[in-house]
Amino acid sequence: METGLIQETIRSIPSLNQAVQAEARRHIDNLTKPPGALGELEEVVVRLAGMTGEKIPTIERKMTVVMCGDHGVVEEGISAYPGEVTALMIQNFSRGKAAVNVLSRCFGAEVRVVDVGSRLEEAPPDVWVRKVRAGTANMAVGPAMTREEAVQAVEIGIQVAHELKEEGVQLVATGEMGIGNTTAASALAAVWTEHGVAEVVGRGTGLDDEGLKRKQHVVEQALQINCPDPDDPLDVLAKVGGLELAGLAGLVLGAASKRIPVVVDGFIATAAAWAAVRLAPVARDYLLASHVSEEPAHRSLLAELKLVPLIQARMRLGEGSGAVLTFPLLDGAVATAREMATFADLGL
Amino acid sequence: METGLIQETIRSIPSLNQAVQAEARRHIDNLTKPPGALGELEEVVVRLAGMTGEKIPTIERKMTVVMCGDHGVVEEGISAYPGEVTALMIQNFSRGKAAVNVLSRCFGAEVRVVDVGSRLEEAPPDVWVRKVRAGTANMAVGPAMTREEAVQAVEIGIQVAHELKEEGVQLVATGEMGIGNTTAASALAAVWTEHGVAEVVGRGTGLDDEGLKRKQHVVEQALQINCPDPDDPLDVLAKVGGLELAGLAGLVLGAASKRIPVVVDGFIATAAAWAAVRLAPVARDYLLASHVSEEPAHRSLLAELKLVPLIQARMRLGEGSGAVLTFPLLDGAVATAREMATFADLGL
Repeated sequence: METGLIQETIRSIPSLNQAVQAEARRHIDNLTKPPGALGELEEVVVRLAGMTGEKIPTIERKMTVVMCGDHGVVEEGISAYPGEVTALMIQNFSRGKAAVNVLSRCFGAEVRVVDVGSRLEEAPPDVWVRKVRAGTANMAVGPAMTREEAVQAVEIGIQVAHELKEEGVQLVATGEMGIGNTTAASALAAVWTEHGVAEVVGRGTGLDDEGLKRKQHVVEQALQINCPDPDDPLDVLAKVGGLELAGLAGLVLGAASKRIPVVVDGFIATAAAWAAVRLAPVARDYLLASHVSEEPAHRSLLAELKLVPLIQARMRLGEGSGAVLTFPLLDGAVATAREMATFADLGL
Repeated sequence: METGLIQETIRSIPSLNQAVQAEARRHIDNLTKPPGALGELEEVVVRLAGMTGEKIPTIERKMTVVMCGDHGVVEEGISAYPGEVTALMIQNFSRGKAAVNVLSRCFGAEVRVVDVGSRLEEAPPDVWVRKVRAGTANMAVGPAMTREEAVQAVEIGIQVAHELKEEGVQLVATGEMGIGNTTAASALAAVWTEHGVAEVVGRGTGLDDEGLKRKQHVVEQALQINCPDPDDPLDVLAKVGGLELAGLAGLVLGAASKRIPVVVDGFIATAAAWAAVRLAPVARDYLLASHVSEEPAHRSLLAELKLVPLIQARMRLGEGSGAVLTFPLLDGAVATAREMATFADLGL
């Protein structure tokens, strides 16, 4: 059994409001368009209605949360970039100059950077430093972290969700930064899908063929050495996960418990969301997919979660960039429900 | 040979500016992200740079053009809606209450409705009435219109593009409204692809199985009776096309000749864009795809045009709705190129 906060959060996630969903669908079916002609935009509005309990949901205050952590496994040579880039990118986020900042500004969202476990020693003042430890240990030689540390990271995510709720945030995007974290996400995918390691390991930030083979080997080794228990999500997160992944899993649980819809970014964020769903299946109902990334296992994870991505643009950046790019599509979907005429208005 | 205006426009379409494209790519490759990590967003910026001649393109003034026309073939029972809905929707556009209006407002675009050939007798004052004739003839029993009428509709589209250029419009979306026009678009797709009629005819606004069979039969009949010449795009547009389709083909040619990028909407708009590309292959370089619709032949048309859609949301509304939904993604792409830091800025 886990700590009070995680269990309490899991227990407090409400079911979707089906009555409001039915109302939303009736409303949408009367708008001046053939029934269903706005496709997934209609589904999105209905789902948001169920999450928020509002027939036409309000998603004005939007927040991109970028959870950051370093990965000991980087010493195995599984990334095209050195581990130091995590810290540099935290500074870049703080200056508002990374892709996720630009896109968030463009679409009226704020960015909150949470350092759950990077090696950066002095973070800029606007970064929320909630550090469990300065990077994980190398999962290729032992567990990435202890179970207690994984629990702590999940709890941090839950607490961040509570703070966002108090700030009035109405929609959250899950972003991450951590050189080496596609290796951790691939390990989660290998544990939780039918796919073999070769199928779930991709090129990340741009590995060559040799690097890709090394990364596959490292994931296999990490799974063999650590033997994570698939039925115990915290064991998996601790042994072959990451601090930012555990943090994002907590963020999903916390947001769901507060009825805040969560837009999931790419492969890593989806793996983290899946960890949350392993902990609390009902949390899935508060997830919206954004895009399909170039990482080979992303599409399978989305399918397992029964989430439909709206964007397909061969993106593979992380940071929450694909999730933020989906914000205007959600705005557009809600606006059609709010502002379109009905056929009755036209006298039909 | 055709009129002066069409030929003159075709001749005046410039090649993409490859030097500026190369500059744009160099700039993007230095931004704080792995090379290529923003996927299609990067390609979009490079393509826009080539079209506009600006390393970082300006696409502030955006216009959704909705070309409207009625279709005599509606009397064959090929649509789930009566032909009168075209006129009602023109009034709905004018009131700003249709999906395309809502989405355009949401994303900072204007809407221009052009009546190229509806049966509406008194259009609201903000509609541009450029009517060639009040609806086409029934293509199942003879040509939809004369060649002269098709030429006139294409010229109207070219002239609209010229007017938009004078207004300072920097990006155009192609929308359409015309009950029965998926039948015309399917006929174009059957003439210009390897696919048989059964593969290119879809359910449009929502036909049942019987309606779908009838529609397939009607398209076959229209092709048999009219024998359009695949190598003569104006012959195809005249015999089995539509007034708004010919107008949109002209809009594409005119926009390309003025270096204005064109975001193509769904199946019907893509069929019209394809007619333009049959007239002037270089026009293809000024097209950007938006979404993949539910109409079965849309994906093949996009593939033939080598265009990559960004959104996949099972939409099938037309009006330009999918194209407008792509505007913020283009804004986001350009913003990343304009505002992101370079690795040199980070000291790497």
